[in-house]
Amino acid sequence: MKKRMTHIYTGSGKGKTTAALGQAIRAIGQGLKVCVVQFAKPSDLETGEKRISDRLGDNLKIVQFGDSKTWLKPTSKQEVNEKMKNAVSDALKFAQECMDKADVDMLILDEIIVAVSLGVLTEEEVISIMKSKPAEIELILTGRGATVEMIELADLVTEMKEIKHPYQRGIDARRGIEY
Amino acid sequence: MKKRMTHIYTGSGKGKTTAALGQAIRAIGQGLKVCVVQFAKPSDLETGEKRISDRLGDNLKIVQFGDSKTWLKPTSKQEVNEKMKNAVSDALKFAQECMDKADVDMLILDEIIVAVSLGVLTEEEVISIMKSKPAEIELILTGRGATVEMIELADLVTEMKEIKHPYQRGIDARRGIEY
Repeated sequence: MKKRMTHIYTGSGKGKTTAALGQAIRAIGQGLKVCVVQFAKPSDLETGEKRISDRLGDNLKIVQFGDSKTWLKPTSKQEVNEKMKNAVSDALKFAQECMDKADVDMLILDEIIVAVSLGVLTEEEVISIMKSKPAEIELILTGRGATVEMIELADLVTEMKEIKHPYQRGIDARRGIEY
Repeated sequence: MKKRMTHIYTGSGKGKTTAALGQAIRAIGQGLKVCVVQFAKPSDLETGEKRISDRLGDNLKIVQFGDSKTWLKPTSKQEVNEKMKNAVSDALKFAQECMDKADVDMLILDEIIVAVSLGVLTEEEVISIMKSKPAEIELILTGRGATVEMIELADLVTEMKEIKHPYQRGIDARRGIEY
């Protein structure tokens, strides 16, 4: 078996989660087992990736922590912080268990780096999970704000740089495109 | 229906085709119909995306033009140029027909921009196909080397910037990860 690596998709442009999702699909197509842990996506949002995972059998598992009250419509800063911290802490625990069991070929920690930017996860926690990667898992981290030490530990790092974005013109996220 | 747009994924980093593929999967998950035309991928390469498309029914069609003799192992420059030109010309014709029939919701022209960089397609041909986009199709173009005019015509442009790549260390493409 060829060496399994660590990838990071970072930067402010569109395409980070989308590229990770493309990686997952390609891997499944080649018979690999993939788990996607989404750190900042509401579990009650019916995303295209979740709907498709039902049709792809056991080889793709997508899990979210926290619902739309946690991630979309904060009623107070304090409340959100507590909810977000709990959600992210659960996500981290789940991810660590995946690592320890090593029962998948690819583990995607979607938006884990954003969780650091939001202050609900520390850089050390991310570094620690990166260092615990077993040789047989391909690890993919996404989110804006990758730090120098994270990049140091990764094998493959791409920065998605926003050149042009329709959000600049005030257009909302569209079903089937952005989620 | 919300306005359908044109995206470009360009730049030298990993993640362009992968992000387009992620877009395709998300769209299919939401019930949209997607066609991926690959301009520089051998039809006889058993990619993860092709294998998965068999399991996703009619909503995902992936087509290649030219085989591994065309795209991987040139025996002579002249021969490759002719073969490549024919393959790309067929791909362009196919893509244009998709546009005209408008029987898909999302059309992905994978590596079409690379074809321009290789000199087997002109910038004008790409601009012309971009301009012919019907309102009901979401159009995605990938490949390094997007020009100013292409960017001008697109709604959403991300540059994948290579920060770190294992190819720099001489590691070959791996099944399930790079294809």
